[in-house]
Amino acid sequence: MIFGVDYYPEQWTEKDWDEDLANMQEMGLTSVRLAEFAWGLIEPKEGKFDFSLFDAILEKIRKANMTAILGTPTATFPPWLFKKYPEIAQVSKEGIKRIIGTRRQASFSSPAYRKATERVVTQMAKHYAGHPSVIGWQIDNEPGHEGSDLDYSPLALKNFRKWLKSKYRNLDSLNKRWGNVFWGIIYSDWSEIPLPGSHVASNFNPAMIQDFYRFQSEELISYIKLQADIIKKYCKNIPITTNLYPSPFLPITDMYEMFKSLDYVSWDNYPVWGNQSEPYPHPLVSATLQYSRGLKNKAYTIMEQFSGVQGHDTLGYLPPPGLIGLWLTQAVVNGADQIYFFRYRTARFGQEQLCYGILDHGKKKTHKFYELKDTIQKIREFAEDIQDVPYKAEVALLHDIENSRNYKHQPLSDGLKFEPVPFAKVGYDIEMATWFAGTNVLNVNTHFLPIESEMDWTQYKLLSLPLYTMYEERIVLKLREYVKNGGTLVLGYRAGIKDKDHWMVETPVPGMFQEMAGVEVYQFEAIGNGEVKAKMGFFPLIAKKFCEILEPTTARVVARYSDSKKFYKGKPMITVNSFGKGKVYYLGTSLDPFSQVLFYRKVLKEAGIPFRFLGKNIERHYRTGKKYNYQITMNHSNQIKWLGFTRMQPFEFKIKKINAN
Amino acid sequence: MIFGVDYYPEQWTEKDWDEDLANMQEMGLTSVRLAEFAWGLIEPKEGKFDFSLFDAILEKIRKANMTAILGTPTATFPPWLFKKYPEIAQVSKEGIKRIIGTRRQASFSSPAYRKATERVVTQMAKHYAGHPSVIGWQIDNEPGHEGSDLDYSPLALKNFRKWLKSKYRNLDSLNKRWGNVFWGIIYSDWSEIPLPGSHVASNFNPAMIQDFYRFQSEELISYIKLQADIIKKYCKNIPITTNLYPSPFLPITDMYEMFKSLDYVSWDNYPVWGNQSEPYPHPLVSATLQYSRGLKNKAYTIMEQFSGVQGHDTLGYLPPPGLIGLWLTQAVVNGADQIYFFRYRTARFGQEQLCYGILDHGKKKTHKFYELKDTIQKIREFAEDIQDVPYKAEVALLHDIENSRNYKHQPLSDGLKFEPVPFAKVGYDIEMATWFAGTNVLNVNTHFLPIESEMDWTQYKLLSLPLYTMYEERIVLKLREYVKNGGTLVLGYRAGIKDKDHWMVETPVPGMFQEMAGVEVYQFEAIGNGEVKAKMGFFPLIAKKFCEILEPTTARVVARYSDSKKFYKGKPMITVNSFGKGKVYYLGTSLDPFSQVLFYRKVLKEAGIPFRFLGKNIERHYRTGKKYNYQITMNHSNQIKWLGFTRMQPFEFKIKKINAN
Amino acid sequence: MIFGVDYYPEQWTEKDWDEDLANMQEMGLTSVRLAEFAWGLIEPKEGKFDFSLFDAILEKIRKANMTAILGTPTATFPPWLFKKYPEIAQVSKEGIKRIIGTRRQASFSSPAYRKATERVVTQMAKHYAGHPSVIGWQIDNEPGHEGSDLDYSPLALKNFRKWLKSKYRNLDSLNKRWGNVFWGIIYSDWSEIPLPGSHVASNFNPAMIQDFYRFQSEELISYIKLQADIIKKYCKNIPITTNLYPSPFLPITDMYEMFKSLDYVSWDNYPVWGNQSEPYPHPLVSATLQYSRGLKNKAYTIMEQFSGVQGHDTLGYLPPPGLIGLWLTQAVVNGADQIYFFRYRTARFGQEQLCYGILDHGKKKTHKFYELKDTIQKIREFAEDIQDVPYKAEVALLHDIENSRNYKHQPLSDGLKFEPVPFAKVGYDIEMATWFAGTNVLNVNTHFLPIESEMDWTQYKLLSLPLYTMYEERIVLKLREYVKNGGTLVLGYRAGIKDKDHWMVETPVPGMFQEMAGVEVYQFEAIGNGEVKAKMGFFPLIAKKFCEILEPTTARVVARYSDSKKFYKGKPMITVNSFGKGKVYYLGTSLDPFSQVLFYRKVLKEAGIPFRFLGKNIERHYRTGKKYNYQITMNHSNQIKWLGFTRMQPFEFKIKKINAN
Repeated sequence: MIFGVDYYPEQWTEKDWDEDLANMQEMGLTSVRLAEFAWGLIEPKEGKFDFSLFDAILEKIRKANMTAILGTPTATFPPWLFKKYPEIAQVSKEGIKRIIGTRRQASFSSPAYRKATERVVTQMAKHYAGHPSVIGWQIDNEPGHEGSDLDYSPLALKNFRKWLKSKYRNLDSLNKRWGNVFWGIIYSDWSEIPLPGSHVASNFNPAMIQDFYRFQSEELISYIKLQADIIKKYCKNIPITTNLYPSPFLPITDMYEMFKSLDYVSWDNYPVWGNQSEPYPHPLVSATLQYSRGLKNKAYTIMEQFSGVQGHDTLGYLPPPGLIGLWLTQAVVNGADQIYFFRYRTARFGQEQLCYGILDHGKKKTHKFYELKDTIQKIREFAEDIQDVPYKAEVALLHDIENSRNYKHQPLSDGLKFEPVPFAKVGYDIEMATWFAGTNVLNVNTHFLPIESEMDWTQYKLLSLPLYTMYEERIVLKLREYVKNGGTLVLGYRAGIKDKDHWMVETPVPGMFQEMAGVEVYQFEAIGNGEVKAKMGFFPLIAKKFCEILEPTTARVVARYSDSKKFYKGKPMITVNSFGKGKVYYLGTSLDPFSQVLFYRKVLKEAGIPFRFLGKNIERHYRTGKKYNYQITMNHSNQIKWLGFTRMQPFEFKIKKINAN
Repeated sequence: MIFGVDYYPEQWTEKDWDEDLANMQEMGLTSVRLAEFAWGLIEPKEGKFDFSLFDAILEKIRKANMTAILGTPTATFPPWLFKKYPEIAQVSKEGIKRIIGTRRQASFSSPAYRKATERVVTQMAKHYAGHPSVIGWQIDNEPGHEGSDLDYSPLALKNFRKWLKSKYRNLDSLNKRWGNVFWGIIYSDWSEIPLPGSHVASNFNPAMIQDFYRFQSEELISYIKLQADIIKKYCKNIPITTNLYPSPFLPITDMYEMFKSLDYVSWDNYPVWGNQSEPYPHPLVSATLQYSRGLKNKAYTIMEQFSGVQGHDTLGYLPPPGLIGLWLTQAVVNGADQIYFFRYRTARFGQEQLCYGILDHGKKKTHKFYELKDTIQKIREFAEDIQDVPYKAEVALLHDIENSRNYKHQPLSDGLKFEPVPFAKVGYDIEMATWFAGTNVLNVNTHFLPIESEMDWTQYKLLSLPLYTMYEERIVLKLREYVKNGGTLVLGYRAGIKDKDHWMVETPVPGMFQEMAGVEVYQFEAIGNGEVKAKMGFFPLIAKKFCEILEPTTARVVARYSDSKKFYKGKPMITVNSFGKGKVYYLGTSLDPFSQVLFYRKVLKEAGIPFRFLGKNIERHYRTGKKYNYQITMNHSNQIKWLGFTRMQPFEFKIKKINAN
Repeated sequence: MIFGVDYYPEQWTEKDWDEDLANMQEMGLTSVRLAEFAWGLIEPKEGKFDFSLFDAILEKIRKANMTAILGTPTATFPPWLFKKYPEIAQVSKEGIKRIIGTRRQASFSSPAYRKATERVVTQMAKHYAGHPSVIGWQIDNEPGHEGSDLDYSPLALKNFRKWLKSKYRNLDSLNKRWGNVFWGIIYSDWSEIPLPGSHVASNFNPAMIQDFYRFQSEELISYIKLQADIIKKYCKNIPITTNLYPSPFLPITDMYEMFKSLDYVSWDNYPVWGNQSEPYPHPLVSATLQYSRGLKNKAYTIMEQFSGVQGHDTLGYLPPPGLIGLWLTQAVVNGADQIYFFRYRTARFGQEQLCYGILDHGKKKTHKFYELKDTIQKIREFAEDIQDVPYKAEVALLHDIENSRNYKHQPLSDGLKFEPVPFAKVGYDIEMATWFAGTNVLNVNTHFLPIESEMDWTQYKLLSLPLYTMYEERIVLKLREYVKNGGTLVLGYRAGIKDKDHWMVETPVPGMFQEMAGVEVYQFEAIGNGEVKAKMGFFPLIAKKFCEILEPTTARVVARYSDSKKFYKGKPMITVNSFGKGKVYYLGTSLDPFSQVLFYRKVLKEAGIPFRFLGKNIERHYRTGKKYNYQITMNHSNQIKWLGFTRMQPFEFKIKKINAN
C-alpha cells in the first residue's frame, strides 16, 4: 500500500526539496509522481534533452528511500513544437483552435505530434530505464480531458476518412449502413465526407456521429499504446498506467480497450472542484471509484487525491474537518492500493495557483497536513491487510461505452441531457450513478463493470443494466444464459432496440430482450425534468426523465403509474418475469434516488442478497483482508448519526474487524 | 377531400410497398407525398438521372387508384454537388458554414445551386409530366426553415449589393434613406457595404437590416418561382405549392408574395414537437391554420400532419388517446382540404429515427393507425360537405410582414423578444397569436390575413391590428375608409410611427392614425416580462410587455392603469373613438390572455358580433357546407367538460348539423 | 457652471437649427457638444476635408452667445478607410471582426488607423483653433466602451510581443516572472507568444492575461495622448477631455493614467439604460460620480446626462416625474461643474432612434423639457456657489486598477463574477459600490480615489480598501504610515497576497498587512451566490461571496459567523487591531448592503465621524460654497418620506443653506 503525493520540483528551489521530502515522510508518504507537464524542461530545443533537474530530485528520492512514478510530459507541448508544426493543434467543435498557452491541445491524428512524442518518450524511457526509485509510468495526463477526446481539426478529418475506408471498404456499404438514403446524402467519394461538427439546426446522421466517436476513441487509444510500447521496450517490468480524469464515465473513449495495453488503472479523485457549492453525493464518488476498479477488475491507483480546495479561476466548498480524511478512506475501501495526493505544496504562480495542496503557498504545515497524516496512520494497517484481496460483490452494474456515446448525441429526453460544461454531456453517467446508488445506499458491495469485458458473470446474484439501447447480440445471449441459470437481471427502459449501425429494430421495446423480460412497449413519454407519480404496492415512487407504458406478455406487474395528470395512470411501470431459473425486472422509467432504493430493497430481498439501510448519508462496505474481515462504515453527513448505540461524528469513519480469516 | 400520407419508398424494400399501400387504403388514405429529399437518388452523378425507384412506386400507386404529390428534392443536395461547388453553402450569422450532412444548406444566392436546381427540376418535371397519378407538386421542403431564411455567405453579400443598387440607384439616395449620417457611416462605393451579420455590441443600422431581410425574402421567393416556372412549363394544370414550416408566422420571408406564383398554400402542422412538455395552446394552432388559410384566402393543405411523437434527438409530450384525431379535425375545421400525415412508418435510421409516424419502426398497426382511421371515418362526410365552401368570418386579424421583420431586430421590450431557438425570434408571432386568442376563445370565427393583400375588408365587422408600427400610407387610408363606413378597428400600441425607410415620424404615437383613434401618446414604459395592473370598469386587467400612457383628444377612456407601484396609475390605457360611422379602439398595452378575452367581449358586444365563452379549453367554429350548416365544438383539455347538458370527453370533438342549406 | 446639450446638426435641416438653439436657451442651456461621430462628414474622401456644416452651426452658436465642445470623430471611421485598410478592425475574443456598420471598431494597435487619426485630428484642430465659441475638446467618444478595450487582432498580437520585449528585455526573465515552468510553456522565441484569447477549457497563465490587459490599456492611453498632443499644439489653452462610458469602474484601462494627459474628467451618466426594469441603486450612481471626481480629485463634467428613455433595440423603465431632475441634481451635488444632456432631439433614424432625448422625434416641447428647465432654474444659484469649491470628505474608498483587472480574469468566487453583457465582467466594480454604499447610505461625504495617485491621505479619518489582493509595497507602506499616524483603515478579505507578477506570497492572508491587521487566515470558503449568517454583538449580519475564517494574533474580534450549517460557526469574521495611533478593521467577507451599513455605523462612530441614517432611499451630502454651506437631501424613492417634520415628495430634493461662509 503506497501513500504518495504529486510533486513539482521544477516549481521550487533545490533548497526546498530536502525539506519537502522530509515533511512527506513525516506525513507517511513514501512516493511521488513527477514530470507529467515537463516537456518544455526536458526538451528545451528540438532534439536537445536535459534531464538534470529530474535526475537531481530522483537522486534525493532514492537517498530518502522513497519512490517515484514518472509522467510522460505530452499533455502540453513546448512552444517551439507548435511554432514549427502549427497543424498539431486540435480544433474544437465550435472551431476554436487549441493554441499554445493552455493544455491538452494536441491532435492525436497529427503525425508530427506522434513523431515528437516518440522522440521525447523514447529519450525519457531510455534515460530512466533501470532507475531504482522509479516504480511506475503514467502516460500523458488525463488524456481526453477538457473535451480533447473530440478533435475537429483538418488532420482528424483526414484520418476519419481513412478509418471509414478501412471499416467499410466501399462507399455502398457505408451509405447503406449509415442509411444515407435519408435526406439523400449519398456519398460517391470518400473525400465528400465531412466531420460531424458545428451545425446550425438539424444534426448529422447519428450513425456517422457514432462512428466519429469510435474513430476518435481509437485515435486516442493508439496514441497511448504508442507510448506504452516504447516504455515497455526500455523499462521492462515497470508497470504503466494513465490517469482517468474527473468526469465520471467518459463517454467518448473506450477506457476498457485503452487499458488493455496498460498495467493498471488510475484515476483523479476530486469529490468537489471549482465553484461547486457542495461535493458530489457519496454514491457518485463510490460509483466512479468502482468504475476505476472494474475496468481491469482489480485494485487501482488514485493518481490525484483531493487534498485542498481546488479551482482554476473560481473556488467553492470548503471541506469541514474530517472530510478529506473520509474521502481518502472511501477511495481505499473501494479498492485503491496506491494514493497520491494532489498536490504537495500549492503553486505560487501559473494557472493552478488556486489549486490548494496539502501545504498552502507557504511552507507552514497546515491542518490538512495533520488530518491526512492522522488518517494514514489510522487506516494503514487495514489498507495493507486488504491490499491484495479483491473487492468482493454479489451485485454488478454494467456500463456500455457504445450507449454512453449514443446518449451523448441522442439524449432522448431533456432529463438525460445534463451538460455541466460545454464539452461534457453526462446524462448517461448520471443515470449510471443513480442506478449504482440503488444498491450502494443499501450498503451492498457493488461492482461497476464494462459490459464488453470477457468476465464470467456467474459470481453475481444480481446484474443491473440501464440504458442498454444499442445492443450487441453476443451480450444479449450472455445475459440470457445468465438469467436462465438463476441470475437476476434488472433491465432499464429503452433496452435492446438499436443495432451498432444505429438502425432501430422492427420489434417493439425491449427488442431481443422481449422473451426474457416478458413485456412489450408501444408508448412512452419523455418527461424531461418533470416528475410522474407511481406506486409499488403501498409505496409511492417518483418516475423521472422517461416513462414507458409497459404491456406485460408473461411478466407480472411490480409497480404502476398513479399520476392523475397522466392518461397512463394505472398502467404498468415496472414488471418482473421468471425466465429459466432466474428473473428479469424491467424498469420502464428512471426512478428518483429514493424510489430507486425502495425498488432495489425489493429486488435484493427476492434475490436473497443481504442489505441494510442506515440513512442516506451512511455508506458501509465489506472487505476481506488477508487477516481479517472488515465492516467499514462512513458518515458522509455533517451531523452526528446514531447507528443503534454507535455514535458517528460528522464525517467519521469506523473500520470494524468482523472476524479473523 | 383528400387524406394522405408522407411516404419514403426509398427507405423501405420493394416488398414492403404493396403491404404499405394496402394498409394506407384500409386507413382511408388515398394519396402520398413523395421524393422531397431524394436529389441524391434521382441524380446520383452530375447530369445522370435515375427515376426508376419513383417510377416503380408511382406505377403501384396508379394501380392502387391512389395519387401522389411530388416534392422537388432541393432541400438537401447531393455530396458531389457540394464538392464541386463548395460556395453553394449558406453561412449563418455566427459564421457556421452549412456543410453537407445536414439539410437546408444551400444559398439561394448561388448561381451554381440555381443552375443545378434548374437541371434537376426540369428533368423531374419532364419525366413526370402527364403521369396520371400525379396531382400536385411541392417545391423544395419548408424553404426558409431552420434559419435558412437568412444567409450570410459571400454570395449573399454580392447579391445584396446588387439588390441595393437596383433599389436605390445611387449611394446618395441609400445614404439619405438609411440615415447614414448617423455615426457617420456614409458609403462612397457599393463594395463598402457589408452584411449586417455578427457584431460585438451595437447593432447595424435598422434600415439596413430591414433591407437585408427584404433582400433575403426576394432571393428565396425568386428561387421558388424559378422552380414553379419550370414545373408550369412541363406539367400544365397540375397545382403547385410549397410547405410552410412550423414556426408560426415566418418573420423574414414574405409568404403572401411567395404564394403569388403558387396555386395553394400548404403547411406542416405539429402542435407539439421535440422536447416540448405541453402542446401549443389551441388558439396558437388555430391561428397558424388561419394564417395558412388567409395567405390565399382559400382552402389549404396540411402537408405534414402530426401523427406520432416527433423529435430529432430529444422527445417530449405523449398525446393522450383522442388528441391526434382532435388535431386532425381542428385542421379540417379551420379550412384544410387535403391532409397528409407525417409519416407512414418511422424511419429505422437517419436523423429522424425518433420522428414517429403512424406506424412505429416495425409493421404492426398501432393505436395511432386505428385512431386516425376512426377519425377519418367520423369526419369525412362533414369534410366533404364543407370542402368547397369558404370559411366565413366577420372578424379578421391583420398581419404585416414588414412589422414582423421590424420587431425581429428591434423588439422594443424584452416581453417581445421571445427566442425559442437561436435562429427564431418570434415575439411578434406570439403577440399576433395572443390577439387572435381574444376572439378565438370567445368562439368567433376569425380570419388571419396579410395586410398587404388587395382584399376588400367591407365583409368584416371588426378588424384587429396589433404592432402596426411601420406603416404604409395606402393601408392607413384603406383602414380610414373602412372605419368611416362603419367598421370597428382595434389598433394596438406603437402604431403608425415609422415609415418603410425606418424613419420615425414627427407626430406622436399613433402617427397617421391619430385623428381616427382620437388619442396621443407621449410617454410609455417597456415593462419586459413584468405585469402592471389595470381596470376596465369593475374588471381587473393585466398589462404586459409595454405600457403607453394615453392622452385622449376626442376618444373616450375604456380602461385605466390601476397599479399603485406605477406613477401612471389612473392614466388611460384603452380608449375608443367614434370616427365616421365606425369606431377605433386603441389598446395601449399587450393584455394577458384572460384580459384580452374580457376586452374583446366588450368590443364584440358593441360591434354586434355574437360570441359565447365556453371555457378556456373549448373551441367552437361555425362552418357552412354544401348541404348543412355546422357547429363544431372541440374539447382541448384532458378533463370531461359539461356544456349545459352536453358532456364532452377529454379531447372529444362534436360536429353538429345546425340546419340544412 | 455650464448646462448644455449634445447636439447633432448633421441629423437635422438648417431650418431646424435656429429654432433648436432658441429652445435650448429658453431651457437655460448655453453650450453644445458637437461632431463626435462625424468623421464620414468631415473627410468624405481620403484627404478631402469639408468643415462647412460645422462651420455653419458654430457660426449660429457664436451669434447666439453659446459655446461648444468639439468631439474628435474617431469612434467610428468612414467606410472608405476600412475598405483601404481592412486590418484596422478590432477582433473580439470570440473572433468576431468589428467591421464597418457599427461603432468602436478600430484597433488602437493599427498604424494605418493612427495615421488617419493624426490627419483628421490635425485638420480639425487647425481648422477650429481660435474659434471664439469652442470651449473644449472631447477626444474620441467613450474609448474602450462595448468591449473595445480588448483587441485580439493580429496587429494587437504584433504590438503585444513588442510590448513584452520592451518590458522583460529577455525571455528568461519573462518565463521566470510569468512562472512558465508551470505546464512547461517555456517560450524560446518572442514570436511563439500568442494572445490569451478564446480557449476551450483551461485558461491562459494569469500573469500573461494581466500583462495583456496592461498592454491594451497602454495602447488605448497612447492613442488618446496622440490626439491630445495634436490638439494642444494647435488649440492652446482649450481644455481637453474624453468621456468615460457607463460601466462603472472600467476594469481594463487605467483611467487615472489616461487623464494625466487630459485636463478634466467627463463621464456619461445613465442611471438607467436599455431594458433595465429599475434604475441602478442611488449609491452606485453616486459611487460612479465620485469615481469621476476622484480621478483628478476635482470637478468633472457630465458629457451625456440622461434626459429620456434610452436603448438600442429594447427599452425599459420610465422615470416618474421628478426623477430626471433629481439625477441632474445628484450629479451636481457630487461635483460636476458642466452638464450636457444627451440629447437635444431624438434621432429619427439610425441605431439610436430609441434613445429618446429632451425632445421626442418631433419638435413639440415635452414634459422632459419643462422638468429639466425648472430644475436648472432651481439649482443654478447653488451650483454656481459651490462650483469652484472642492467636494470635501473625511472618508475615502480606494480603487485599484490592477486588482480590477485581476478579478476580471480570476474572480475567485461566483459571487464576484457578475457579467451583465459578454464583454463586461464587473464583479470588482459591484464590490466597490457595495463598500461605497456603506458610508454613502449613512450620509457621510465619501471620496472614491485611485490608489495609485500621489495624494496625501492624512486629510481622511477613514480609508476603505476592498479586494486589495495584488499589492504594491509602496502602497502598503503608505497605508502603514497612515494608520500609525492615527488613521482608520478598513481592509477587505483576500488582501495583500499577490505580487504584480501574479505570484502568491508565502505568508498567509493578509500578507504584508498581517502586523497592521493583527490577524491571519488559513481557511476560507467561496460561497458563490449563497449566504452565511453571522453576528456582530446582537446584530445579525449576512456574509456573501467569500468567507474567511480569521485567526487573530493581536486583533480583537468584532463579528463572528453564526450559521449552524457551517462548521466555522463561532469563528471570527471581522476583527479590529490597534496599530500605532490608528486602527485596522479586517473584514473577512463581503457583507450584504444592510450589514455593510451596520458595520460602518460602528466604524464611523469609533472613528469620530458624524453620520445619520435617514432611510435606505434618502441620500444627503454636505457641500461648501463660496457664500454658504449646504445640506442637500434627496429622496430616491417613489414614496413620500418624512424626515422629522420635513416632508419629501417622491424624487424630491431639498437644498438647505446651513450657514453663510
